[in-house]
Amino acid sequence: MNEAMLPKILGHVRQTSILQSTMSMLEWDQNTGLPPQAAEYRAEQLTLLAGMVHQRQIDPVMGEWLDQLDTSSAQEDPSSPARVIARCMKREFDRCRRLPQALVEELSHATSIGQQVWVESKLSDDYQRFLPQLKRIVELKQQEADCLADPGQSRYEVMLDSYEEGATVDRIQKIFGALRESLVPLIREGSERCARLGPSVVEGHFPIVPQQRFSKWVAERIGFDFQRGRLDQTEHPFCTTLGPHDHRILTRFSEDSFSSGLYGVLHEAGHGMYEQGLDPQWYGTPLGSAASLGVHESQSRLWENLVGLAEPFWRWAHGPLLQHFPTEFRDVSTERLVQDLNRVQASLIRIEADEVTYNMHILIRFELEKQLMSEQLRVEDLPEAWREQYRDYLGISPTEDRTGVLQDVHWSAGLIGYFPTYTLGNIYAAQLYAVADRQLGGLASQIERGEFRPLLDWLVERVHRHGQTYLPMELIERATGEPVDSRYLVEHLATKCR
Amino acid sequence: MNEAMLPKILGHVRQTSILQSTMSMLEWDQNTGLPPQAAEYRAEQLTLLAGMVHQRQIDPVMGEWLDQLDTSSAQEDPSSPARVIARCMKREFDRCRRLPQALVEELSHATSIGQQVWVESKLSDDYQRFLPQLKRIVELKQQEADCLADPGQSRYEVMLDSYEEGATVDRIQKIFGALRESLVPLIREGSERCARLGPSVVEGHFPIVPQQRFSKWVAERIGFDFQRGRLDQTEHPFCTTLGPHDHRILTRFSEDSFSSGLYGVLHEAGHGMYEQGLDPQWYGTPLGSAASLGVHESQSRLWENLVGLAEPFWRWAHGPLLQHFPTEFRDVSTERLVQDLNRVQASLIRIEADEVTYNMHILIRFELEKQLMSEQLRVEDLPEAWREQYRDYLGISPTEDRTGVLQDVHWSAGLIGYFPTYTLGNIYAAQLYAVADRQLGGLASQIERGEFRPLLDWLVERVHRHGQTYLPMELIERATGEPVDSRYLVEHLATKCR
Repeated sequence: MNEAMLPKILGHVRQTSILQSTMSMLEWDQNTGLPPQAAEYRAEQLTLLAGMVHQRQIDPVMGEWLDQLDTSSAQEDPSSPARVIARCMKREFDRCRRLPQALVEELSHATSIGQQVWVESKLSDDYQRFLPQLKRIVELKQQEADCLADPGQSRYEVMLDSYEEGATVDRIQKIFGALRESLVPLIREGSERCARLGPSVVEGHFPIVPQQRFSKWVAERIGFDFQRGRLDQTEHPFCTTLGPHDHRILTRFSEDSFSSGLYGVLHEAGHGMYEQGLDPQWYGTPLGSAASLGVHESQSRLWENLVGLAEPFWRWAHGPLLQHFPTEFRDVSTERLVQDLNRVQASLIRIEADEVTYNMHILIRFELEKQLMSEQLRVEDLPEAWREQYRDYLGISPTEDRTGVLQDVHWSAGLIGYFPTYTLGNIYAAQLYAVADRQLGGLASQIERGEFRPLLDWLVERVHRHGQTYLPMELIERATGEPVDSRYLVEHLATKCR
Repeated sequence: MNEAMLPKILGHVRQTSILQSTMSMLEWDQNTGLPPQAAEYRAEQLTLLAGMVHQRQIDPVMGEWLDQLDTSSAQEDPSSPARVIARCMKREFDRCRRLPQALVEELSHATSIGQQVWVESKLSDDYQRFLPQLKRIVELKQQEADCLADPGQSRYEVMLDSYEEGATVDRIQKIFGALRESLVPLIREGSERCARLGPSVVEGHFPIVPQQRFSKWVAERIGFDFQRGRLDQTEHPFCTTLGPHDHRILTRFSEDSFSSGLYGVLHEAGHGMYEQGLDPQWYGTPLGSAASLGVHESQSRLWENLVGLAEPFWRWAHGPLLQHFPTEFRDVSTERLVQDLNRVQASLIRIEADEVTYNMHILIRFELEKQLMSEQLRVEDLPEAWREQYRDYLGISPTEDRTGVLQDVHWSAGLIGYFPTYTLGNIYAAQLYAVADRQLGGLASQIERGEFRPLLDWLVERVHRHGQTYLPMELIERATGEPVDSRYLVEHLATKCR
C-alpha cells in the first residue's frame, strides 16, 4: 500500500513545491530590485500562484492518500520516511482543513494591510493609528487558534505549536523563567564592565565594498556553498530557498557599523547552511524541510554568536580583516576587537541588542503575546504594558512607541508565538556547540586554524539531515544526548559578562 | 456577442500571461546569477510552467470563444481590437493545438539545459560537449516544424513565419541576395579605408564601473524608463519583459572594448523602449505585444546604430563621456571618435561586428539554419560548415569554436529562424529613421542637443502603440508611407564606407 501511496504523494508535493519555490523567486526579486512601478503586477503574480498552491494543499485526494499512507504504515518505525510524511503532512492538511476559507482570506488581507499601516505608524510614532488593525489581527488570530485548538489546548499553545511543534507553554515558561533568573545578575555585571570601556573600535566609517568582500569570503570559508547559493543586498536581511540547490542570503551593509553587515551575513549564512545541509532528494517534503523555526534559528545563532563573536574566530579572521580594512583596524588588537564586539548593555531595540540582553527582549514579547491571546491584556493597553515590562526586565523604558511596541513587524504580519523561537534557537545553539566542542576535541583550536568543516559536518549529520523526522526538542536531545537545557546558554553568556 | 466574448478571452489571457511573465522572471534570474548547481531544478520549474501555459493555450474553451469572437466581429474594421485579437490569437491557438504537450515540455527542458551546457562549452571551447544537446534541440525543432507546417510549407518557412509573420523564405532570400550584392563592394571599400587608419581610440583599457555608469546615463537620457525597468549584467545581452511595467536590459561590459558595453546597452534599451511604448492596458494580448522580432530589432538597431553611431550623438555625448573617462579619451576629437566607432572590417564575432559587415554574419546563419532544418547539414558538421561560410562571405575563418559556432546563445535556446529578423530589423530601422528625419525636420540637430523625445514619440505613435494590429511589413509600410525597401539601409551603410 505504501509503495502505491508514497510516490503519488511525493509527485503531488513536488509540483506544489515547484510553485512555492517560484513564489520565493518572485519574492527574492521583489526584495533585490523590482522596478518601482512593477510592484502591483508582482502582487498579481504572487496572488495567482498562492491560490494555485492553496488549491493543491487542500486537494481532498491528498487527504485520502495521506490517510491511506497513515494506516498502511502504522506498524513502521516512527522515523521511517512513510511515518514522518504521514505525521507531518496529515498535521498540515488537517490544520488547513480546520480553517474556514473566509478566515484565511480575512487574515491574509488584515495582515497585508496591517504591515502597511504598521510601517506608517512606526514612521509617525503613532500607535493609535495601528491600534484598529492590530486589534483586528489579534481577534482573527484568536479565532484561528480556536479553530485549530485540540480540547484543553490554550490559544497561545496552538500558536506556539505551529512554529515549534511539541513545545508547550509550560515547558517554555519553565525554561524562560530559569533563564531570566540567571540573566539578571549577568546583565548587571556585563553592563558595569562595559561602562568602564572607552570608545568602540567597531563603530566608525567602513566602506561598503570591502565589507561585502570580507563577509562573502567569511561565508564561503565557514562553509556556505556558493555553487548552490548567492549573496545579495536588500533592505531587510533574510535567507530564502529557491530550489534544492539554490539558497540565497540577502543582507544589508551600513557604512557606520562594521558589525551589522558581517554578523548579518554570518547569521543568514547559518540559515543557508542549514538549508544546504537538508537532503536535496527529499526537497519539498517534511524529510527535506527544516525541523522548526527554533532549530533554524539555532543554526544562524551558532555561526553568528558562538563561532563568530568568539576570540578563536578573530584569531583566524583578524589577518584577513586587515587586508580588507588596512587603515580602519590599524593597531587594534584581537582582544580589543573581540571585547568591543561583545559589549553588554541594556538597550531598547531588539535587533540591535547584544547577545546577552537579546533574550530579555524575547522574554518580554513572550509574556505580552500570551496575555494578548488569553485576553488578559487589551490591545489598547499594550504600549503601557510594553514600557512596564522593559522597566521590569531591563531597567530601561522607551519614551516613544517607535522604539517600543512599534519596533517589530511580526505582530502586524500575524506572527504571534514566533518570538520565543529566537530564544529557543539561542538555547539549542549553545547546547549543540558545547556538545560538538566536547565530541570534536576542542573547537577553539580548529576555528583558530580556519577549520570549520568538522563542526559543519557534525551539524549536518546530527541536525540538518533529519529534516522533520523528529520533533524539534527531540532532535536537539538526540543530537546532544541530553534534554534541552538553558544552562549551556547561561554558561556561554557568562563568559561575555565577567 | 463581442461584449460577452472579449472579457472572457481577456481574463483567460491575463492568467496565462502571468504564468508566462513568471517564466520570464525565472529565465532572467537564470541569466543573471543562478547558482551553478541550481540549473537542473530551474529547468524543472520552467518545464512545469511551460506545461501549464501550454494547457491554457490549447484549452478548447478558448478555441470556442475565439471562433465566436471571429464570427461576431467579422464585419468590423480589421484593425479593431476584436478583429486583431481574433486573428492573432486564433493563429496562435491553432499553432499550439498542433504541438503535442510532450514535445513542448521536452523542448522547454532541452533548451533550458541546452543554454547551461552552451555556456560551459563556450567557456571551455568544447563543441563536442555541446553537440548532443544541440542535436537534440535541432531534432525537436524539426519535429515542431513538422507539426506546424501547412501543406507544402518547408520547415524553415514555418520557423521564420513564427518570428516574422508573413515573411516568406522566398522574399527574404531575394532581399538578402540583393543586400549581399550591395554589401560586397561596400565592405571592400570600407575595409580599405579602415586599413589606412592608425590604432583605434575605442580599444584599450576601460574600467567597468564608469562604463556602467555612462551607459546607464545614456539609456536614461534617450528615454528608457528606469521606474519601469532595470539594467543588469549577463553573459549574452538581452532584454526581457516581466510585466506591463517591468522591462529589463541585460548586457555585458568588457574592459578591453569601450564600445561593446555602451552599444549593447543602447541596443537593449531600444528593445526596452519598444516594450515600454506598448499599451500596458493591453499587456499580454496581441494589442499590447510587439509586432514581430524584426520590428523589435528595428527599434534596437535604430537607437544603437542610426542614432548612437552617428556624429550628432557624439557631439552631444562627448562631454559627458569625458567626465566618466577623463584620461582614456583625453585629446580625442569627436570626429576621430566617430570614425573609430564606425570602422568597417571583417571579424569573427557577430555581436562585435561593425554595422556593415554585421549583415554578412546574419546571412551566414540564415544559410546554415536552412540547411540544418532541411537535414542538408548534420549538426556534427556544423563547425566546419561555419568556417567555410565565413571564408566565403567574409574572407576570414575562426580557429576556435568559441569564436565560431559556439559564439551565439540562440540555437541552444531553440531559436532557429530568428537570426534573419536581425537584418530585417536593420532594413526597417534605416527606413523608419529616414522618414522620421524628414517628417521631424532634421533629427541631427535635435540629437546634437540631446533631444530624443520627438523621435521616441514618433516611434511610439507610428510603431509601438499598434502592437500586432498590422503584420510587420504592413506596419512599417504604414509608418513610413512606402513598402519595405533595403535601399535606405544600403544608402546609410554607404556613408560608413566612403
